[in-house]
Parts: sequence; structure tokens; C-alpha cells
Amino acid sequence: MTLAFGIDVGGTKCLGVVVDQDGSLISETRRRTPRGDDALIDTLAEVAGELASSVEPGTDIGVGLPGLITTAGVLRSSPNLPDVVEFDLAGRLGARLDRVVRVTNDATAAAFSEWQVGAGRGVDDLVMVTLGTGIGGGVVAGGRLVVGANGFTGEFGHMVVDPYGPPCPCGRRGCWERYASGSGLAQLARVGAVGGRLANVVAMAGGDAALVRGEHVQAAARDGDAGAIAVVDEFARWVALGLVNLTNALDPAMFVLGGGLAEGADLYLGPIQRWFGELLYAPHLRPHPRLAFAELGEHAGAIGCALLAAEC
Amino acid sequence: MTLAFGIDVGGTKCLGVVVDQDGSLISETRRRTPRGDDALIDTLAEVAGELASSVEPGTDIGVGLPGLITTAGVLRSSPNLPDVVEFDLAGRLGARLDRVVRVTNDATAAAFSEWQVGAGRGVDDLVMVTLGTGIGGGVVAGGRLVVGANGFTGEFGHMVVDPYGPPCPCGRRGCWERYASGSGLAQLARVGAVGGRLANVVAMAGGDAALVRGEHVQAAARDGDAGAIAVVDEFARWVALGLVNLTNALDPAMFVLGGGLAEGADLYLGPIQRWFGELLYAPHLRPHPRLAFAELGEHAGAIGCALLAAEC
Repeated sequence: MTLAFGIDVGGTKCLGVVVDQDGSLISETRRRTPRGDDALIDTLAEVAGELASSVEPGTDIGVGLPGLITTAGVLRSSPNLPDVVEFDLAGRLGARLDRVVRVTNDATAAAFSEWQVGAGRGVDDLVMVTLGTGIGGGVVAGGRLVVGANGFTGEFGHMVVDPYGPPCPCGRRGCWERYASGSGLAQLARVGAVGGRLANVVAMAGGDAALVRGEHVQAAARDGDAGAIAVVDEFARWVALGLVNLTNALDPAMFVLGGGLAEGADLYLGPIQRWFGELLYAPHLRPHPRLAFAELGEHAGAIGCALLAAEC
Repeated sequence: MTLAFGIDVGGTKCLGVVVDQDGSLISETRRRTPRGDDALIDTLAEVAGELASSVEPGTDIGVGLPGLITTAGVLRSSPNLPDVVEFDLAGRLGARLDRVVRVTNDATAAAFSEWQVGAGRGVDDLVMVTLGTGIGGGVVAGGRLVVGANGFTGEFGHMVVDPYGPPCPCGRRGCWERYASGSGLAQLARVGAVGGRLANVVAMAGGDAALVRGEHVQAAARDGDAGAIAVVDEFARWVALGLVNLTNALDPAMFVLGGGLAEGADLYLGPIQRWFGELLYAPHLRPHPRLAFAELGEHAGAIGCALLAAEC
């Protein structure tokens, strides 16, 4: 049986996997993500070396990172390598390993694995949205992964949903990820915590509204705190707004929601669905896309990289 | 040579064409679009009858309309048939003509023809956006037309770009077509025409700000009126904002801009490109999609319907 080989470079860790054609894990290993491009090459070579005994010699390896990555595997920019631009990761790691290296955006890879072996199996038109610190994603249309003209498909987090909204680190205002990501949830809570409001949420953050994080809102909402539940509802409205925009554009049969916020799925799913119905164009005249949470968890990116490399 | 056969049902006219494989017009005819579904079937049968002598017996016919049209050719709703829902146009017209009828969204058809034989020839990843009374469009990704799970791809006009914006007839607020369509341009001017501002534009509308239309703004801007130029610039910013959102999501190599506003191309193209560069995520790290105006004019929809029907 042919096995596939992938590494996902996250903000904190590099996760390497060997999987079979069904995406089942054969082996895995992890290392802390280092700073700088030379150190990253070293770490990736180490991960690859450790897993190499599980795959046939010469097996291509897939590597995923966040950011703008060209179809040739050149990193234009990545939040995980803040000072690096135009980094030919595919070329450099390939030379080091004497192996073909396929580099892709991590969320595109996650979309591919969730479609092939995860929550979206058998669905020809789906959009994956990863709700983490920021928002990324990938698109499957007509039974094919859409990568775009340059490989940059799925930068959903920077769709502008409120031109008068708060500044985004990207330099624009009101990007979707200012509201609908993990950092967006925390920001909605901090903005709402004025005049003694959200007292329970602020208490969970040690009494300082500036320290409120998404998990405090989640915990308070689970305790039944009305203020926290209202923040979750506002958050769900922003998530739904972006999903609606993608539905109007792409008409998917399904959304697969991944990233760190997928862990609060039970809390968000109902409100997101309700707001989706409010915001969608002609909601009574069309089937609504199914909203599902990702199944492959933290492995989605690495498995997707492996399957994509095996497919080439 | 096999010829193809299509009819575009617009708000005011039904335009029927027979074209060759290159999309060149062999013959055409037009009728006023009637009110009601029975009258529409009669009119379409008349148009088909007139053109039938140009095509081989049994040639499939393509029909395009705005609105939500399923992949089976059922009209869920169309602005051109305001009181009609769930209208099996493909079935009813097919039975009447004893011919296979393929019904599709008009903007999807226009995207197909501009891609196959118009401004987007040879481009594998493009988005067509029709800027008319409203906004529609279509998507080509990886060298294939994207129709979506239900056939509803390309309802770009109802992407929400300002959740606190003006109400849209669709029931939501701040839809893109409230700003970036022909009616949006007029509305931006009417809103701006307060306290004696936009005096030249208002004068062109006969002195009543409520009667200002997009063409008045265009004419005044061409005359060098600073107020009108500022409205055009604001309009261009809204157009660019939606194009940016689609670029972040889909990474096309090209936008083809069609619809009535394409006639003001010279006026808008520069400002749209400038705002596009301001609003795009990481604009310095990526090629910008080419912005081009549609080539097939009012025939784009009918030609697309014909080519789509011939392809099936």
C-alpha cells in the first residue's frame, strides 16, 4: 500500500504524519516551530528524517503553512515567518532531502483532507473555513479543489465585511477575521465589557477587561451568563455573515468549520445557523448548505499535505 | 458546422441568437419580454420558431434569465417574473418545442461566453461581474465553469459589505449591489446631493435630486465636475471592495466586468484599479487580477446560453 507523507507548519509546532490512502495515521511526530527560514529547513529535515523509514524511498512530501504560497511552492509571506518573503521552501527543502517537496497553504490542505477523508467526504461543492486566530479556508467546486490563479484561494479572513470597522493588522479595516475569528470573539467581548457589563466574563479573566479571551466568553456562556451568551450571538452573526457571502458567491452544499473555535461547536452551531437564515439571500427559496465541524482536528493540515503530495 | 441556439430573457427584451462554435452571430431576433409565465412561454416559442430554420432539427436550445435557477432548469424566482416561483421553464418550453431546453442563470451564461469567446478567452481562473441594475456574475475556476451545488453560483450582489448599510429589497442591509450597481451609483449621488452639493448633477436631472440617475453622474464627471468625479470615486471604491473580497476568496487571474455600467468603462477603470490596490490583502506580494470589460455586450447572455446548450 502506498503511504503519503506530510508536515504542517503551525504557529507553535511542526506536525509530521505518514498516512495511508484513507488518511489513517500510520505514524506522526512533532517539533516546536523555530524562528527563521534556515532553522525551519533544519526542523523540517529532522521531522522528515524521523518519518522516512515509514514510507518508500523517493515518496514525495507535502508541506503546509499559512500565508500566500505560490503553486510553485514559493512562500510569498507567512505569519509564521514574519520577516521572510519570497522563500523557495519547495526548492530548498527538496534539495536538502533529495525528494520532491510540494508546498501548499495549510488551510487549502485542510480543506482537501476534510473533503477526501473527513467531514466533507463525497460532497462535490464545499467550502472549508478555519476559524482560529485568523480565518483561512479552501474551496472545492464541482468535485475539484480550487487553488486559484496563483495558489492563493481561501484568504477569507480578509474579505472586508465592514468598511468602517476596526483596523486589521493587514492594513485595511473591517476584515472578516476582526470579528469572526478567535481574536475577533475576544475583541467583541472586550468592546462589550464597559460600564460593568460582562462582569462574569471579566472576572474569569482575573478582573481585567483587557485580558478577556475567547475561552472566558465560552466558559461564561456555558455557565448560562446572559451577557456572554449575547456576545456569542453577536459573534455567530459575524460568522454567519461571511458564510452567507461565500454562499451567495459559490453556492456550496456544505461548510466545514475548522480551526480552534471548532472546539466550541456546540455553543456556536445553533446561533450561526439561525443568523445564516436571516442573512442569506432568498433563504426560503433554496436549500441551505449543511454546516458541519471538521473531523480531522489538528491533523487536518498535515494529512491534506500528505494526500496532495501523493496525488501529484 | 454545428450551430448553437440561445435566448436571453432580459427585463425588457428577449434576445434570441444562433451562433457558430466561435460565438459568431449567424442570426438574431428580439421580442419585448411579456408579463407572466404563460406569456413568456409563448414569446420564447415564437423566438425559437423564427430562428429554428437556421439550426439543425433537434438542436438543443439554451435559455437564460436572472434569478435562482436550479441545475434542472427550474426557476425558483426571477426578478423578471415577480409573482412566479417554482416555474419549470425547461420542462414546459421543452414540451412545447419538442426540443431539449437548458435553462441557466443569465450572468452564469454571460460568464461562460466571455470566457469561451469573449474578453476572458484562454484564462483558466476568472470571475465575471455584471454591474447593471443589480449585480450578478459567474465563476470559472481551474478551467471549468463553477455552477455550485444548486446552480446558484454568482449572486455577488447580495454579499453583505456593510451590515449597517441601507436596506436592500432582498430584506437585508448593505448588500454590495446597494452601492456598486447602476442603482447604487444613483443612490450614492442622491445621498451626496445635499446642501447644494452636486449642483451640476442635480441640474442634469432637471433640478430634482430625487431624479438623479447614474447617467447624470457619468455625464457631469465627463464634463469635469469635481462633485461628480468624487461620486464616481466613491462608487469605484465600492466596486473595488467587492472585487477584492472575491479575489481574497477565489484568486482569479482576471475580472470581466459587464452589464450596463461597462459602458462607462473609461470613467471607472482607473479609480477601480487604484482602490483595488488599496483594499486587497497583501497587494505588494501578489499579481493583481486583470480588470477588463466584457466584449460581447448585450449578446453575452444569449451566446452563453447557446454555447452551454451545445456543450451538453
